Amino acid sequence: MTDPLTYKSTGVDLDAAERAKQSLKALVSDTRDENTLSELGAFGGLYRVPADVEEPVLVSSADGVGTKLKVAFASGRHHTVGQDLVNHCVNDILVQGARPLFFLDYLATGKLDEGIVPEVVRGVSLACRENRCALLGGETAQMPDFYGEGEYDLAGFIVGVVAKKRLIDGAGIEPGDRLLALPSSGLHTNGYTLARAIVFEHMGLGPDDPFPGTGESVADTLLKVHRSYLRVIQPLLASGLVKAIAHITGGGIEGNLPRVLPAGVGAMIVADSWEPPPVFRTLAEGGNVDPREMFRVFNMGVGLILAVAPGDEDTALERLGGEAWSVGHVGPGEGVEFSGSFRM
Amino acid sequence: MTDPLTYKSTGVDLDAAERAKQSLKALVSDTRDENTLSELGAFGGLYRVPADVEEPVLVSSADGVGTKLKVAFASGRHHTVGQDLVNHCVNDILVQGARPLFFLDYLATGKLDEGIVPEVVRGVSLACRENRCALLGGETAQMPDFYGEGEYDLAGFIVGVVAKKRLIDGAGIEPGDRLLALPSSGLHTNGYTLARAIVFEHMGLGPDDPFPGTGESVADTLLKVHRSYLRVIQPLLASGLVKAIAHITGGGIEGNLPRVLPAGVGAMIVADSWEPPPVFRTLAEGGNVDPREMFRVFNMGVGLILAVAPGDEDTALERLGGEAWSVGHVGPGEGVEFSGSFRM
Repeated sequence: MTDPLTYKSTGVDLDAAERAKQSLKALVSDTRDENTLSELGAFGGLYRVPADVEEPVLVSSADGVGTKLKVAFASGRHHTVGQDLVNHCVNDILVQGARPLFFLDYLATGKLDEGIVPEVVRGVSLACRENRCALLGGETAQMPDFYGEGEYDLAGFIVGVVAKKRLIDGAGIEPGDRLLALPSSGLHTNGYTLARAIVFEHMGLGPDDPFPGTGESVADTLLKVHRSYLRVIQPLLASGLVKAIAHITGGGIEGNLPRVLPAGVGAMIVADSWEPPPVFRTLAEGGNVDPREMFRVFNMGVGLILAVAPGDEDTALERLGGEAWSVGHVGPGEGVEFSGSFRM
Repeated sequence: MTDPLTYKSTGVDLDAAERAKQSLKALVSDTRDENTLSELGAFGGLYRVPADVEEPVLVSSADGVGTKLKVAFASGRHHTVGQDLVNHCVNDILVQGARPLFFLDYLATGKLDEGIVPEVVRGVSLACRENRCALLGGETAQMPDFYGEGEYDLAGFIVGVVAKKRLIDGAGIEPGDRLLALPSSGLHTNGYTLARAIVFEHMGLGPDDPFPGTGESVADTLLKVHRSYLRVIQPLLASGLVKAIAHITGGGIEGNLPRVLPAGVGAMIVADSWEPPPVFRTLAEGGNVDPREMFRVFNMGVGLILAVAPGDEDTALERLGGEAWSVGHVGPGEGVEFSGSFRM
C-alpha cells in the first residue's frame, strides 16, 4: 500500500488559496462602485447595468500581458504588470467609445506564492481604481508543472458600456479625414519576445543595468506601464468629433489601424512626423532590426491613432491637450502606406 | 554587427497568428445571435443588452481549465477542454439565476500550433452554441519560453444577465430547507493535479489504458466533459422555487456549498445518500487517499446542489427530471457536516 496521497502533497494547497483570497479582499473592495452588487467569493460577480445609458451596448475584451511578464520575473517587480493589463483592456474598449464597468483577472501559477500574488493583484486594483472600473472577480489557479518557481501567467477581461448611438465604428470615415496620434509611454505590452532577446541576450544587459539612451535602468525602461488613454480621450468622445480610434498594439500601426477603417479606404502615415523615443532606437541598433520590422512589431512611440474630419482637426488637437500631433490622413486604397523616411 | 533579428526569429510569428485568426472565423460566427453587433477582429466585442430583462444585472465569471489540460496534452485530444471551460463558466453564473450572453477565451501557447488552436476553439464554440452564448472574442497569445511544445493554457470569461428580482442569492434560506443534488459527469474540472499523480504516476497508466472500474480508457474517463446544468435548471428558475444553488468545483461540497449560505446556517449532508461513481473509488484506492480528502478535493459525483423550501421538494425533484436526489438539509450552525458513512 502506497503512502496516502493528498492534494497538498501533489502540489495544490487549498489553505494557501484561501489565505490568498483573504489577502485580496481589500484590493477588490477598494474598487467597488454603486453598481457592484456582489462580494468577493460569489460564484459570479454581479454588476447592475447603468440606468443612464440609452440603448446600452456592452463592449468587452480579453487580453494578456505576454512575455513582458518575463521582465517582471527577472527584476522581481510584480506590481506593474496588472496595470499594464487593465490599461490595455481599457484602451481596447475605449476605441469603440465605451467606458469601463468591470474587470476580472486570471492569474495562473505553478505554486501559489503568497508574496507575489497580492503584488500582482495590487497593480490590477490600482489601475481599476484609476480607470473607475470595478474589479469584480477573478481566478487564481494553482497549476503545478505549468509554470516555473515564482512565475505566472496573467490575463484579464473587461466589460464596458456605450450608448448605441455613441458607438465609434469608423462608419463615417472618408478619404481626406485626418489622422491624429497620441504618444505611447514605452513598449506598452507588445514586442517583448523580440525586445528581451535583444536586451538580455544580444546586448547582455541585466535588469539593473542602465538602458542606453533612456537614462533609466533596463527594468524601469521595459516595465514602463502601458498607458490608459481614458482620461485624455473621454472629453473628446462627448464632443462626437471622433470617427474612429485604433489602439496600436501587437502588429504596430500597420497591424492595427486598418482594423477600424472601412473597406476601400487606407491610411497614409507620415513616418517622419515624429521621432520614436530612444528605447526604440536602442532596440533597433542592439538587434540590428530592419526599420520596417521595428514598425511592424512595436508601437514606435504611437499609442493611439484617431480619425477626424479635416474641419475638426484643430479643435481635436486642442482638446487633446498639446501632446497629440497630426500623423497622416485617410485616402483611397487599403492598409497603411508610409511616406517620408523612418526616423530612428 | 549581429545578424538582423526579427520577431519571427525570436519565436513570434505574426503571419501564423493572422492565419490562425482566419481559421477561427467560422467557429466564432457560428455562435452569433441577434444581440451580437461586432465581427471578429474588432478591438472590443459588441453585445447589446437584451431589452426584455427588467432591471438587468450582469453576472460574470472568469475561470481556467487547470491541469485537466495535461490530460488533453498526454492524449493529443484538444477539442473537449473548451467545452469544460464554457460549461464551468455557464454553471458559475447559472447558480445566481443568470442566463449566458457572451463568452471570451484566452489561449496562451509557446509556439502557435496551427493544428491545435482551432481544435481547442472548436470545443469553445460548440459549448457556446449548446449554451446559447455568443463567442464574442478572445486572445490567442504566442509566448515563447512560457509553454512547452504543443502545450497551452486556456482561460475564459463569461457574462450573463438576470432580472434583479430573479437573482438567486440565498437570502431566503432558513433551517429546515431541503438540499437537492444533481449528478456530475465525472471529475468536471477539479482535482486533476491529484488525479494525474494517482493515475499516471502511482498506477502507472497511460491515456489509452483501461481505467479500472469505468469500462472506458483513462483518456475517456479523465476527459469526460464538465457538464452544463443550464437546460435542466432553467425551467426550475422560472418557477421561482430555488433559494440557492452551489456549483461543486474546487474544494468539493464543503468548499462550495457554504459560499451560498447566509451567516448562521449550515448544511447537513447525508454522505450515504448516493454512491460516488467508480472513477472516484479507483482514485481513492490507487492513491490511498483518505475519504475526507477525497470529498475535499473532488465533487464525488455531485455537480450541483440546490436549496428549496420543504414544501417545494417534491415539485422540484419532479421538475429536475428524475436524476436529482435529496442529499440533506439546512440547519443552524455553519459550514458543512456529513452524516452517515462515506461510501467509496
